[in-house]
Amino acid sequence: MIIVKIGGGQTINLTGIIRDLAAVQESFIIVHGANALRDELAAKLNYQKKVITSVSGYVSVFSDQNTIDLMMMAYAGLRNKRIVELCHQHGINAIGLSGLDGKAIQGNRNKGIRVKKGEKIMLVRDFSGKPQTVNKELLLLLLGHGYVPVLSVPIIDENNCAINSENDDIINVLQRSLPVDKILQFIEAPGFLEDKNNPDSLVASILKQELVDREMQVTGRMKRKLLALRRLFEEGAKTVIISDGRTEHPVADALAGKGTVIE
Amino acid sequence: MIIVKIGGGQTINLTGIIRDLAAVQESFIIVHGANALRDELAAKLNYQKKVITSVSGYVSVFSDQNTIDLMMMAYAGLRNKRIVELCHQHGINAIGLSGLDGKAIQGNRNKGIRVKKGEKIMLVRDFSGKPQTVNKELLLLLLGHGYVPVLSVPIIDENNCAINSENDDIINVLQRSLPVDKILQFIEAPGFLEDKNNPDSLVASILKQELVDREMQVTGRMKRKLLALRRLFEEGAKTVIISDGRTEHPVADALAGKGTVIE
Repeated sequence: MIIVKIGGGQTINLTGIIRDLAAVQESFIIVHGANALRDELAAKLNYQKKVITSVSGYVSVFSDQNTIDLMMMAYAGLRNKRIVELCHQHGINAIGLSGLDGKAIQGNRNKGIRVKKGEKIMLVRDFSGKPQTVNKELLLLLLGHGYVPVLSVPIIDENNCAINSENDDIINVLQRSLPVDKILQFIEAPGFLEDKNNPDSLVASILKQELVDREMQVTGRMKRKLLALRRLFEEGAKTVIISDGRTEHPVADALAGKGTVIE
Repeated sequence: MIIVKIGGGQTINLTGIIRDLAAVQESFIIVHGANALRDELAAKLNYQKKVITSVSGYVSVFSDQNTIDLMMMAYAGLRNKRIVELCHQHGINAIGLSGLDGKAIQGNRNKGIRVKKGEKIMLVRDFSGKPQTVNKELLLLLLGHGYVPVLSVPIIDENNCAINSENDDIINVLQRSLPVDKILQFIEAPGFLEDKNNPDSLVASILKQELVDREMQVTGRMKRKLLALRRLFEEGAKTVIISDGRTEHPVADALAGKGTVIE
């Protein structure tokens, strides 16, 4: 089985990815983002991203109910259904599911962050968390009947509330639960770059044991990305290909070894 | 099996309906609207409803791709996922599906409307149509494994495009395809009113053979509603209860015979 992770950037060639996938013989599951669409919708609706600072100085995004509404509209609504439509147009019998549907992706809500309010220290808790399990029976039932699951956030927490979570963590739980051979990740870059500002600095292959060292060399979002990759391999991943989602044939390119192959 | 149609009005008591449904023993499918939410979102996004006039003077709403985007956000996204979340919070193992998902609801796109453009007469075609079939195998597969389908527009047309359609017509196709005993329709009124401006004029029961006469006496949206009801009975419907979705216990009330019982 292949897990196909489609990034939520604006320049991702969705049609190219879906057209290519229609020719793939192996079974697959799609997990997609929609961050560019979400940001665009947030701007139009005048939703302000809320940020909180913990007492220890750590800054994080605060997912309130408006954030979840927005996610339901952009991810589980518009982007998910347009991908499902594209799939059917290319002969892929897709079925779109958020993590809420049939509790497809279940997680634990984050416990909260300690923040200073005037003189007091308060615990504030948003609607975000970490996925823990997937509904393997449901996914296998659908796959067994010829349906291709197209998954998106939000996921469902231990109290059956919708929560935000990272797609990298969802991929991780899927990898742990299903017989996955290969993970394809489509991003808005040629692959993993030695220098993020130089598109010609593609790293063609990385051995999984190199991931720790690379994680120490980088900062910010890339550090989190590498941590997620390291965890994927700790969970038993065999091959991860990070590849350009903007080319004419993103999936064919990735399967031909373009991009960064990690194994 | 019961089909539960939940209107998309702002004052519908969704929590009350879902809480009540959790106590219902018989299996059921939910079909919901989201028109108030859609209109609110359209206003915020400054989407203008497009209206076209046919050469024969018939005025209709034109569903362009923006209309479908909006529908994916409001119906298949926000409203569908919030209902699914509510269901899980009340112990109903819901799975939300638009008509696109696994081709759950398939229809034919309308052929187009002849309009005058200057001196020329042109055929303009929007993204709307009539549902023809449902994916009975998928719905029964899910029901058989303990999942409750929560359905919404858009549906999928013969060329695998997302199209808009009327929930009344979807109910009709479901009734034709599944072993349905009862259809509950929750609206923002006590039921079918003799005088639409007088909430005390509830018609407690209507015989199905009366529907034709009643259809002739009314105009506008109510006429279409009655036509849809008449077709439902022509397709073999046994009992339809049109009931108030705004009360504390909408489903319990409906099953106790409050509202308008048609049989």
